[in-house]
Amino acid sequence: MSAITYELIKRCPETGARAGIIHTPHGSFETPIFMPVGTQATVKLLAPEELKEMGAGIILSNTYHLFLRPGSELIREAGGLHKFMNWDRAILTDSGGFQVFSLGALRKITEEGVAFRSHIDGSKKFLSPEIATKIQMNLGADIIMAFDECIPYPADHDYAEKSTARTLRWAKRCQETLTADNQSMFGIVQGGMYKDLRKSCVDELVDMDFPGYAIGGLSVGEPHQLMYEVLDYTAAALPANKPRYLMGVGTPDCLVESVKRGIDMFDCVFPTRVARNGTAMTWNGRFIIKNAEFEHDFHPIDENCGCYACRNYSRAYIRHLVRVNEVFGLRLLTIHNLYFLIDFMRKMRQSIIDGKFVDFYNEFAPKYVLK
Amino acid sequence: MSAITYELIKRCPETGARAGIIHTPHGSFETPIFMPVGTQATVKLLAPEELKEMGAGIILSNTYHLFLRPGSELIREAGGLHKFMNWDRAILTDSGGFQVFSLGALRKITEEGVAFRSHIDGSKKFLSPEIATKIQMNLGADIIMAFDECIPYPADHDYAEKSTARTLRWAKRCQETLTADNQSMFGIVQGGMYKDLRKSCVDELVDMDFPGYAIGGLSVGEPHQLMYEVLDYTAAALPANKPRYLMGVGTPDCLVESVKRGIDMFDCVFPTRVARNGTAMTWNGRFIIKNAEFEHDFHPIDENCGCYACRNYSRAYIRHLVRVNEVFGLRLLTIHNLYFLIDFMRKMRQSIIDGKFVDFYNEFAPKYVLK
Repeated sequence: MSAITYELIKRCPETGARAGIIHTPHGSFETPIFMPVGTQATVKLLAPEELKEMGAGIILSNTYHLFLRPGSELIREAGGLHKFMNWDRAILTDSGGFQVFSLGALRKITEEGVAFRSHIDGSKKFLSPEIATKIQMNLGADIIMAFDECIPYPADHDYAEKSTARTLRWAKRCQETLTADNQSMFGIVQGGMYKDLRKSCVDELVDMDFPGYAIGGLSVGEPHQLMYEVLDYTAAALPANKPRYLMGVGTPDCLVESVKRGIDMFDCVFPTRVARNGTAMTWNGRFIIKNAEFEHDFHPIDENCGCYACRNYSRAYIRHLVRVNEVFGLRLLTIHNLYFLIDFMRKMRQSIIDGKFVDFYNEFAPKYVLK
Repeated sequence: MSAITYELIKRCPETGARAGIIHTPHGSFETPIFMPVGTQATVKLLAPEELKEMGAGIILSNTYHLFLRPGSELIREAGGLHKFMNWDRAILTDSGGFQVFSLGALRKITEEGVAFRSHIDGSKKFLSPEIATKIQMNLGADIIMAFDECIPYPADHDYAEKSTARTLRWAKRCQETLTADNQSMFGIVQGGMYKDLRKSCVDELVDMDFPGYAIGGLSVGEPHQLMYEVLDYTAAALPANKPRYLMGVGTPDCLVESVKRGIDMFDCVFPTRVARNGTAMTWNGRFIIKNAEFEHDFHPIDENCGCYACRNYSRAYIRHLVRVNEVFGLRLLTIHNLYFLIDFMRKMRQSIIDGKFVDFYNEFAPKYVLK
């Protein structure tokens, strides 16, 4: 029996979209859901209370970064990541795989694992399926990830096949390492952009019976249309009674297209990163708050938004703060953008419940596709 | 009738210390009080709710900075500074005098006012008693300051005498410019380190009948003992039925020594600035949170502190955040340091009410004097 369970609430009859609830040892959250990213045991600029106020039920944190600083032993000693960072709702940690593979020339892959050099001080480090799992056991997240290789795009069939086979062997080793019964490990579907590899990868992972499945190796530079094609056959092949998580995706256009294909969970640094660059996300697209047109604009970022920033502050005020380098301005934009995406998912979910997902899709997909 | 009133609650029988309440159009606050500084219409890193939670009843904002960006007309258009920055408790604005005089070679003083160049883009600007007052009327703070010259230290008697005379003529012009009946202007006592000039300045200002008096030109590089001497005779000469504000002072040693001499109000960037450098202030002195000794320290900054940071986070966590450049760590230190100083003043006030100020002084003055 897994520590997490997926409860299917409603299917869209015309598409693959579905509404559910995921129950974890740290509370339940409704899906489809967007997970804010707290890379270094903090969602940049925000307090946990601010995340709760906007309705965040789960956040993501990064194994690679916490492994380097402050180290997972320290976090275990502190009582785990929940206690360390004062967050009592659900947490998901990635495996560190994506980050070490992103290091390019700084890393070397063998069957055993990945040797790499820290991006901070160049020191030698090593991650393997066993080590990545033990680190995640020290961190104590509710949902943890198998250690995989994120196949770059483009990659030929031979490379993708060999890499996917290794990812599957690693998944088995991760599964055998995990002993904590309050943590649930997701297997990660790889296979590049190849249907045969994606489908056989799904089959093998499903045989291992993970409590949930992530789809990796997408949103890595391929055209959106190609990502949606891969999602079409990959999501359809996954079991209906388990959650499906699309890693690293978080723009409104990709969210609505992916929910349409049956994805339940998402994470992305996009909304927080663009906030720190002074960009506000809205139901009508994005804008740069510093633009001169907002100098005397005493309306909120979005008149219809219920977030803390929109309830209390004007565009003119936030523009002023950003112009004079006051961090509170970026904090307000971060709150707004995360609230917007969480609210976007909440309304999308409601449309599934109400049997109106296709209307939602038709209204918003065209608006965001030209990002 | 002034828009603010000072209510004297209790005097210390052995010293000049006094406990009071100041009533303003935006609520009342107890004195002696420390005012957090929100230079650019925001207390760096914090939301107004965080300031309220720690008990801040009044904050200070800077005319010079708001004059340059975003401009006081914009803030008037927004409905005033309270509304612009979402702060419904009391605000005090300085006159800009201190900042323009700090520009050194970039400014030129005449009887009319001060011509200077913006520290941001070098553009030519001008402030006069009338302009500084009108800017402050646009901002709409509850307590505003007369435009004065902050005499540098050291200064000879002749310079100090001429400057103080001009400051007095300017005070009159400021007073004549102010027409808003919901704003109260404080006169500023100058006179350098000269007893005769300080006393005659007090006499002339008292003749003008301001609703409160600030003491300027202290904490400008002179020895602490000399500052305390000036405070001794200056504070004693001020009327008992009006508040007394010592500008730019905010370390625990200076606070306790100044309250002893009868000061009611203080402001300083010290607690917030050192927080952003990673320094925590406590009842037992300061420490640098990044130090290696705190790596595995899972206690709060101060076991006995009731602030949000100490209730929820460990030294090890805050150290981690500061080391990896996560702003939330500096935000937690800012919350803690401001709470500490506000709480320090609250406990000092309670000791006055309880007739035990001398005990408080004897306990804490020696601890902080070696800053």
